[in-house]
Amino acid sequence: MLQPTLQSLIAGRWIGSEAAAPLHSALTSAVIYHTHADKIDFDEAVTYARKTGIPALMQLNFQQRAARLKALALYLLERKEELYAISHQTGATRADSWVDIEGGTGTLFAYASMGSRELPSSNVLHEGPAIALGKNGGFAGTHILVPRGGLAVHINAFNFPIWGLLEKFAPSFLAAMPCIGKPATATSYLTEAVVRMMHESGLLPEGALQLVIGSTGDLLDRLNGADVVTFTGSADTAAKLRVNRNLIANSVPFTAEADSLNCAILAPDVTPDDAEFDLFVKEVAREMTGKAGQKCTAIRRIIVPENMVDAVGTRLRERLAKVSVGDPSVEGVRMGALASRDQQRDVAERVELLARGNEVLFSARDGFKPVGEGVAEGAFFAPTLLLCRDGMRNDAVHDVEAFGPVSTIISYNGIDEALALAARGKGSLVSTLVTKEPAIAAYAVPMAAASHGRVLVLDKEASVDSTGHGSPLPQLKHGGPGRAGGGEELGGIRAVRHFLQRAAVQGSPTMLAAVTGEYVRGAKVQEHDVHPFRKYFEDLAVGDSLLTHRRTVSEADIVNFGGVSGDYFYMHFDEVAAKDTQFGQRIAHGYFVLSAAAGLFVSPAPGPVLANYGLDNLRFVAPVAIGDTIRARLTCKRKVDRNRTDDKGVGQGVVAWDVQVTNQRDELVASYDILTLVMKRA
Amino acid sequence: MLQPTLQSLIAGRWIGSEAAAPLHSALTSAVIYHTHADKIDFDEAVTYARKTGIPALMQLNFQQRAARLKALALYLLERKEELYAISHQTGATRADSWVDIEGGTGTLFAYASMGSRELPSSNVLHEGPAIALGKNGGFAGTHILVPRGGLAVHINAFNFPIWGLLEKFAPSFLAAMPCIGKPATATSYLTEAVVRMMHESGLLPEGALQLVIGSTGDLLDRLNGADVVTFTGSADTAAKLRVNRNLIANSVPFTAEADSLNCAILAPDVTPDDAEFDLFVKEVAREMTGKAGQKCTAIRRIIVPENMVDAVGTRLRERLAKVSVGDPSVEGVRMGALASRDQQRDVAERVELLARGNEVLFSARDGFKPVGEGVAEGAFFAPTLLLCRDGMRNDAVHDVEAFGPVSTIISYNGIDEALALAARGKGSLVSTLVTKEPAIAAYAVPMAAASHGRVLVLDKEASVDSTGHGSPLPQLKHGGPGRAGGGEELGGIRAVRHFLQRAAVQGSPTMLAAVTGEYVRGAKVQEHDVHPFRKYFEDLAVGDSLLTHRRTVSEADIVNFGGVSGDYFYMHFDEVAAKDTQFGQRIAHGYFVLSAAAGLFVSPAPGPVLANYGLDNLRFVAPVAIGDTIRARLTCKRKVDRNRTDDKGVGQGVVAWDVQVTNQRDELVASYDILTLVMKRA
Repeated sequence: MLQPTLQSLIAGRWIGSEAAAPLHSALTSAVIYHTHADKIDFDEAVTYARKTGIPALMQLNFQQRAARLKALALYLLERKEELYAISHQTGATRADSWVDIEGGTGTLFAYASMGSRELPSSNVLHEGPAIALGKNGGFAGTHILVPRGGLAVHINAFNFPIWGLLEKFAPSFLAAMPCIGKPATATSYLTEAVVRMMHESGLLPEGALQLVIGSTGDLLDRLNGADVVTFTGSADTAAKLRVNRNLIANSVPFTAEADSLNCAILAPDVTPDDAEFDLFVKEVAREMTGKAGQKCTAIRRIIVPENMVDAVGTRLRERLAKVSVGDPSVEGVRMGALASRDQQRDVAERVELLARGNEVLFSARDGFKPVGEGVAEGAFFAPTLLLCRDGMRNDAVHDVEAFGPVSTIISYNGIDEALALAARGKGSLVSTLVTKEPAIAAYAVPMAAASHGRVLVLDKEASVDSTGHGSPLPQLKHGGPGRAGGGEELGGIRAVRHFLQRAAVQGSPTMLAAVTGEYVRGAKVQEHDVHPFRKYFEDLAVGDSLLTHRRTVSEADIVNFGGVSGDYFYMHFDEVAAKDTQFGQRIAHGYFVLSAAAGLFVSPAPGPVLANYGLDNLRFVAPVAIGDTIRARLTCKRKVDRNRTDDKGVGQGVVAWDVQVTNQRDELVASYDILTLVMKRA
Repeated sequence: MLQPTLQSLIAGRWIGSEAAAPLHSALTSAVIYHTHADKIDFDEAVTYARKTGIPALMQLNFQQRAARLKALALYLLERKEELYAISHQTGATRADSWVDIEGGTGTLFAYASMGSRELPSSNVLHEGPAIALGKNGGFAGTHILVPRGGLAVHINAFNFPIWGLLEKFAPSFLAAMPCIGKPATATSYLTEAVVRMMHESGLLPEGALQLVIGSTGDLLDRLNGADVVTFTGSADTAAKLRVNRNLIANSVPFTAEADSLNCAILAPDVTPDDAEFDLFVKEVAREMTGKAGQKCTAIRRIIVPENMVDAVGTRLRERLAKVSVGDPSVEGVRMGALASRDQQRDVAERVELLARGNEVLFSARDGFKPVGEGVAEGAFFAPTLLLCRDGMRNDAVHDVEAFGPVSTIISYNGIDEALALAARGKGSLVSTLVTKEPAIAAYAVPMAAASHGRVLVLDKEASVDSTGHGSPLPQLKHGGPGRAGGGEELGGIRAVRHFLQRAAVQGSPTMLAAVTGEYVRGAKVQEHDVHPFRKYFEDLAVGDSLLTHRRTVSEADIVNFGGVSGDYFYMHFDEVAAKDTQFGQRIAHGYFVLSAAAGLFVSPAPGPVLANYGLDNLRFVAPVAIGDTIRARLTCKRKVDRNRTDDKGVGQGVVAWDVQVTNQRDELVASYDILTLVMKRA
C-alpha cells in the first residue's frame, strides 16, 4: 500500500519528497502517511508572507475578502466527500467529521456573512463615534482598526484538523493577515488535504496561506510585534511557547486555547421526572462519546446534587452501555477511536489518576470490545464514568484532563457549592447549567461566567434548537480564562478585531473624516447644486451635504400630527399639564420633528435612493415649541459597497446619512443617522 | 530635618516604622524620605483583597462605584495643594504636576461620568444584541461581561506617581477589582500621599485599595487566573515580569505599557511660512521639555523632510535656548529636574549612544546652568537636540530611549520613507503628523496606526483645541503595540471591559433575559391590567409588556401624513412609479408607522414617563400597504438606575423599551428601542 509523504506549502511551493515520521490510522494503527524530512526554510516562509502575502491581501478590502471566504466555503463544500473519506482514518464517525468539515466550512460562511454585514469596503474600520475634545469644535478623537501589517501563525491541536485551521484562518484572513498554519502532526494529513484544496481553488491571494507539516523550527524566533501567534493544545505546551524569548521581547500577541475541565451542573430544582433531567443525561452522554471525548469543550465534570447522584449515575451507565464503539464505517457504530495509540496510553494513565480515591461507575470492564474488521490494534477506548463524592477535597477531578470519553460525577450540596466546584477548574472553556428556573440561572450564570468562556443554560424551551454544550459557534466567544488559556477566539466580528490593530486618532473633524472615511460632525462638507439623493452610489462622496429650506412649526402642525398618529400625549395637547413640565409649555411631537425633517429633505421623484430601511442613534436633544422654525442638514456619512445587486441585477450600496435638525437659533433639536440603499449607475 | 518613613497600606493598616532606603529630592538631592524596612506579608494582602475587598466592591453595582469615583475625585481635588507641595520635590514644574495631579483626578471624573452613562445598575454588563441560534425561537446566544472575582496589581513608573495609579485604579475599580498599587520607589512618597487621602476619605469600600512601598516580593506568585497585572515601565522589566512562572501557568492577564520611541512627522506639504510649521516646532519643544522629557509619550524622533531639516533645527534651537531650567519655584523656570541622580546618569549615557554618528544641535554645551538656590546637586539635565541624516541605517535613534529632554531630528525623503522611519520604532505609544492636507492624513494615518496606539493629526483647525501629542486621555486608547508593550489602557469604557471577564451565554430567550437583566426577543413577558407607562420606575419590571389595540392603515392616512410631514415621496404618492418598485404598490411612510405605533401605545395623561428622549436600532423590516392592520408590542427592555434626581428633587431612572410593530399576519414590520426617563415614587 502506498504511504504518501505529506508536504508543506511554503512560499507557494509544495515541499517534501523524502519520508520522515510515520503517521498511523487510528482504526488499525497501520502506517498511512509520513511527514517529510525535507527542511523548511522559515526565513523564506516569513519573507514570503510579508513581501507577497500582505500586499496581495491589502489589494482587497474587507468586503472583498469576505466575498473570497464565501467562495472558498462553497468550493470546499463541493469537495467535502473527499475530506470525509480521509477523516475516517482519524477514528471519527460521520457525525464527528461533520463537526470538523462542515463546521469548518460553516465558519467560513459565517465570517463571510458577518464581514459583509459589519465591515467597510475599505481597510480602515472606524470604531466611533468620534468624541469632541474641545470647546471650539476644532478637535475630536476616535478609534480606527487597521490591518497590523504582520502575519498570523496558527498552531493547532490534533482533534479538529480542518475546523481548527479554518476557524482561525477566517477572521485573520478578513484582517488581511497571511496565515502560516501548523497542524498537530498526528492528523496533519487531513489539514494537508484541505489546504491543498484551498490552494488549488485559486481563490486565495498569493501568500495568504502556508502550511507547515512537522516542527515549526525557528519560525517563532522570526516574528515581530506586527505578527500574532494563536495556539490550541495543552496548557503545558502553551506555557512553553508563551515564554519564547522573541515573542516576549517584541510583545507578539499570543492567544492560547488550552486544557479545560469543563463541567455540566444539574441545578437543585430538577428532579428525575423533569424533561430537563433527561436533557442533562443526554447532553453529558453525548459530550462524553462525541469525537470519542476528544474535544476541548467536552464535559469532564458532571456536577450533580448529592441526592441525584444515584439517579444520574444509573441513567448514564444505561446510556453508555448502549454506545457501540468501533470502526465508524460499520452500521450502528456511534463512537470511533482516539486519534492515536499515544493518546490511548495517555488517557489510560490519566484515568488511573482520576480513579484514585474515586469510584469507577462504568469502564472497559463493563464488556468493552470494538466493533469492526482489523481494529484490534486501533486506538479505541471504552467510555469511562467515575464518581467523586468529595469534590471540594479531591484535586485530581479538577486538574487532570483525560482527553477521551472520560468524565466524573461530582456531588454537591447547595448551588453555591456547585459553583465553587465549577470554579475549581481554574478557568474553563464552557459550562452547562440545566435548570427550569430563570431565577437560578440569573444567580448562577454571572458567577459561572467569571471562570468560563461560555455558559449554556439548558431547559426544555432551549432544547428544541440547542446547538449543545460542546459546539463553539462563530458568532460567540470561544476561549476561557485561566487554565483554558485566557484567549478569545471567534465571537463574531470581535475575532476580526482581535487580529487588527486599534489606534486612537485625534485631530480636526475634517482630518478625522479623511482618515476614517466617514463624515464626522464638524468636518467640512461639500454642497452641490444637485440634491445628494439624486446621485448614484459611485457619484456620492462622504461629506456631500444638503441644508434644507426652513419650516415654522405651528399649533396646527401639532393638532394635525395628533390626528394622524393618534398620539394625544399631554405634553403636546394639554396646556394645563404642560405648564408643569420642564418645558413649561406644549411642545411638538418628537416624531413630528422627524417626519417634518424627512419632508424637508425628501426628493420626491423616483431616483437612485431605493429605500430608507432604518434609523440609528436618534436623540431628541431640545424641545421644539410652537413658533419655532426648524431646518435639517443631511450629510452623506458612510458608504459601504457590498458588491450586491438586486433581483434585476441592478447594483446597490449602503449609504448612511447624518441628519441634524436645528431651530432658528441654530441649536440642535434632533440628531440621527438614516440608512438607505442607493443604486449604482447601470 | 525630619525624614519620614513611608508606609505601605496592607489589609487596612499602615505598615512601616523602621527606615530602609533613602529617597532624595530631585532638586537638591537631599534625603527627604525613607522606604520602610518592615516586611510586608503578601499572603495577608492578597487574602484581604479576596476575602474583604471583592465582597465589599460587589456590594455596590457599576453605577454606585461610578458615583464613588466622582466623590473621590472631588475629595482629592479639594486637597490638591498638599499634593502640589509634595510634587515639587520630584523636580516637576506646576504644569508638570498639573498633569499628574489634576490629570489624575480628571481621569477619575471621566470614568465616573462614562460609567454613569454607559454601565448598568447591576454587576452584569450585557454586550448584546442576543442572536437567534435556531429556527424555532427557543435558543439564542449573547455575551455578558462580569467582574472577574480577582484583584488587580498595578505596577507603575516613577514619572507620574498620582496619575499613574489613578488611571489604572479608575477602570479596575469600576470593574469591582480590589487594587494593590505598587509605585516606583523613587517617587513613591507622592503616591503614598494620595493613597493616604483616598484611604482617609472613607469613600472606598474596605479592601478596595492597598499600597506597596518597596518590592513586590512574592506578590506575583500568589495570583491566579481571575487576577490581572498591569505594568508601566521599561521594556526590560516588562519582559522579566511577563515570564513569571505563576503568571504564565495561570494565564494571568498581564498588560504592559513600556518604552516607546514616539515620533512627530512634519508632512512634505508644510513650509516654514505655514502656521503648521510653527505648530510642529512648538509641539516638539513642548514635548522635549515638559516634565523634563520624562514622559512615556514624549517625542523622541522628529521626522522632517530633508529640505526642512535646517529650518526646523534652527527654530528648535532658538526655542530650547529660551527654556529656563532650574527650581520650578523660581519665577520664569519652565523646566525642572529629572526624578533622580540615577536618571541623570542614565540619560547622559544614552545621549552618548545617540550621539555616535549623529550631530548634536543643542546640548549642555550651549550654556547650561540650573536656576535656583542649592540646586547644584539636583538631577537637572540640559535639553538636548540631535540630528540624524541617515535614519534608515542608524539603529540607535530608533532603539535607544533617553528618558529626559532629549530628541533627534531624522531627515526623510518622501512620505513613505517617513512612515518607514516611524515604523522602525517597532511599536510606539503615539505619533503626531503635522499636515494641512486631509489626503495626506488619509494615506499616512492608517499606515502609522499599524504601529502606534495613538496618532495625532495637527493642523491649524485642530490647534485651537488640541490636547497635544503627549497627553493620554481617558476617552482614548493609551498603549501601543510591540516595544510599547502591546497593552491597551484607557480608551473609555473599553478599559473597564478589559478588567471584566466576557462570557458567551446560550439558552432560551427567557433564560437569557433573566441572566442579562434585559428583555430578549422571544422571552416570556408579563402583561398586567395597568399600562406599563403608568408605573413608577421601582414598580416596573423588565418584561412588563403591552400589546396594543390594532389600527388599519388607509389611503387617507398616507395622504394626511404626507400633508403634515411634507413628505410626498413617490413610493407613497405615485401609483405609476410605485408599481415598478420591489413592493409593486404604494406603501405607507416608515415614519407614519412609527408615529402610529406611538399613538397606539401612548398613555396620554400625565404619568411617571417624563420624556421619550431617543430611539435606537430602528429597522423597517417589511412594508405596510394600504389596508394592512398594524399593532405594537411594547416591552420594558432595560432599566438603569443612575441615582439621579431632576431639578425638583424627583428621582428618575432610564428605561429602554423594546417595540415590535406587526401586521395582520403577525409579521414584524418595524422594530426599535425607545428610550425614556421614568419617575421614581416620591
